[in-house]
Amino acid sequence: MPESHTDIDRKSLFLRACRAEPVERVPVWMMRQAGRYLPEYRAVRAKHSFLDVCKTPELAVEVSLQPYRLLGMDAVIVFSDILIPAEAMGLTVEFGDTGPVLPRQVRNGSDLAALRDFDPQRDTGFVGEAINQLCRALGSRVPVIGFAGAPWTLACYMIAGKSGSGTDRAKCMMYADPALLRALLDKIARNTARYLSAQIAAGAAAVQLFDTWAGELSRGDYREFALPAMQRVLDELQPGTTPVIYYSKASSHLLELLTETGADVLSVDWRLDLAQLKLALAARRGRAVAVQGNLDPTVLLGPAGTIRESVREAISKTGGRGHILNLGHGILPDTPVENARVFIESGQSAELPARAVSAL
Amino acid sequence: MPESHTDIDRKSLFLRACRAEPVERVPVWMMRQAGRYLPEYRAVRAKHSFLDVCKTPELAVEVSLQPYRLLGMDAVIVFSDILIPAEAMGLTVEFGDTGPVLPRQVRNGSDLAALRDFDPQRDTGFVGEAINQLCRALGSRVPVIGFAGAPWTLACYMIAGKSGSGTDRAKCMMYADPALLRALLDKIARNTARYLSAQIAAGAAAVQLFDTWAGELSRGDYREFALPAMQRVLDELQPGTTPVIYYSKASSHLLELLTETGADVLSVDWRLDLAQLKLALAARRGRAVAVQGNLDPTVLLGPAGTIRESVREAISKTGGRGHILNLGHGILPDTPVENARVFIESGQSAELPARAVSAL
Repeated sequence: MPESHTDIDRKSLFLRACRAEPVERVPVWMMRQAGRYLPEYRAVRAKHSFLDVCKTPELAVEVSLQPYRLLGMDAVIVFSDILIPAEAMGLTVEFGDTGPVLPRQVRNGSDLAALRDFDPQRDTGFVGEAINQLCRALGSRVPVIGFAGAPWTLACYMIAGKSGSGTDRAKCMMYADPALLRALLDKIARNTARYLSAQIAAGAAAVQLFDTWAGELSRGDYREFALPAMQRVLDELQPGTTPVIYYSKASSHLLELLTETGADVLSVDWRLDLAQLKLALAARRGRAVAVQGNLDPTVLLGPAGTIRESVREAISKTGGRGHILNLGHGILPDTPVENARVFIESGQSAELPARAVSAL
Repeated sequence: MPESHTDIDRKSLFLRACRAEPVERVPVWMMRQAGRYLPEYRAVRAKHSFLDVCKTPELAVEVSLQPYRLLGMDAVIVFSDILIPAEAMGLTVEFGDTGPVLPRQVRNGSDLAALRDFDPQRDTGFVGEAINQLCRALGSRVPVIGFAGAPWTLACYMIAGKSGSGTDRAKCMMYADPALLRALLDKIARNTARYLSAQIAAGAAAVQLFDTWAGELSRGDYREFALPAMQRVLDELQPGTTPVIYYSKASSHLLELLTETGADVLSVDWRLDLAQLKLALAARRGRAVAVQGNLDPTVLLGPAGTIRESVREAISKTGGRGHILNLGHGILPDTPVENARVFIESGQSAELPARAVSAL
């Protein structure tokens, strides 16, 4: 039975899922849910550039709310971009038709020295303002998610200046001048921690770090470069207060290292089997780690029956507790809105086994 | 001490490595070793189109031999392209600056029915002729490798018509019309087996199947679609006579399924730890499976010391026996030839522990 938008405390549900506490059902949202698959979003973008939407709180709030109004997911992520901090650190970022371009890249020590530590209030206040307005619009029972790029992924953009083959350039620096890459990652980590702290202060109930290029690294390179930078972000964020979700793409080979980041929730793609992931996490000692994911977004291009079956399978693999249902990557632009609705509704209406809801 | 080109039976060495038999050192070659990083190759391409080089045995032989003459690797792969069979099955293939394009794609049952079973002698005789000429030029002590695309990867190109986002389109077919995808994979598998058999008949000492897009699949989808098609190719090739190498990119999550293909050698990228892979293979019952790989090709953009260290590490992880040293993906076009030389030479001069060379 579909619920109305108001009969449930979505924030409580979401936070309990992040902490792997008992839940009555899994919470559901979609990465890139404010985006091109929505006609309402395209209407806004027809009048405003991507960067204008990011930097104008009223517009960012409007496109962030669109999917929630239409589909009633359980969390609203603020509309922004992972390159906003790159710009705040002093790089130019141009958003063209073929993805973002940074005309000036970080290639040597003086490029690095020229990057400034930015002040989130002064330099990216529009992000905090958008989160603040979202929280007021949604009330206390809907969680707002803030986010940033993970240091390694942001470093790839800063070093390569563009998306395609960005990791090749960053790896060149890794082999030719590892100290320079380490210093860059450290500077990004420091600024990212402050940037996310400001989002939390503005009202974000949880924050997510996006590590799209983590999976390009070997285990050894991830351990040596990406992991310490992630740990620094997490350390400075004082874990335990606001949940931190860590998304890493194509990273099944890094599983044991992902848990060492200190993140509260591991957001994974369809390459990781959720049952195996749950088993691996349960075998660890220490605090519980929840999972987020992991439907292949192309499933949402297919028939409704396949979407429902995939949702059932994902939830049956985790048992529902400590599971935020999501896609394994951003929703694809040519996804029919109706299919996104099937995804959200079948996740929200899935019944959980008794162990997931016990002690409620 | 570097060896001369003639003082070793490279074919015997290569075949022993494929069968995980004792070797005096690891054999080394590089995926895409005949390619743009070589000035000699670019000189040929300045005068002839990519497809002309593929289809003119004298040109294909020339560019296949260039890296061997310069760097003396332990195997020579015939210059060709995985889309040659797509063309032979009736599709048009255009090689532009941004990768191959197939203007007509396979999207429904009549597209599939229109694909013809081709005759390797009649329709792709230039591949066999190039292999035959290569064998004559190289003599009996250098192995020539033939190759084809794996069914799933070739199906992605046939369905999408281009490289980028090819897997999204193929997955759409998987969800919307699984029987159609299965029939396409089966038709490709049947033709691929005959195509590779013809290459073996022409003199190929081993054949490699390239599954660049395997890693995009979840374990369940790989098992249901890609694996049976690979098994059909292997079954029809009569395993045990000529070694079959199976390359799959970003596929650490598929490890146990890769071994079910029946391939003699698993060629993997840097995301798979070679020590773990060796352990996993040793734990299986039945015949030995060798490994090929797995240096990140970006390592060859870095300093010579890092290349040597990475080679030493790779060989120490496998112990050397049942290991063909290679890259984890094709050599990058901007690789300095001198760095390729460091890679080949440090692999060929690496001393192996006693257990790798015992019973010689």
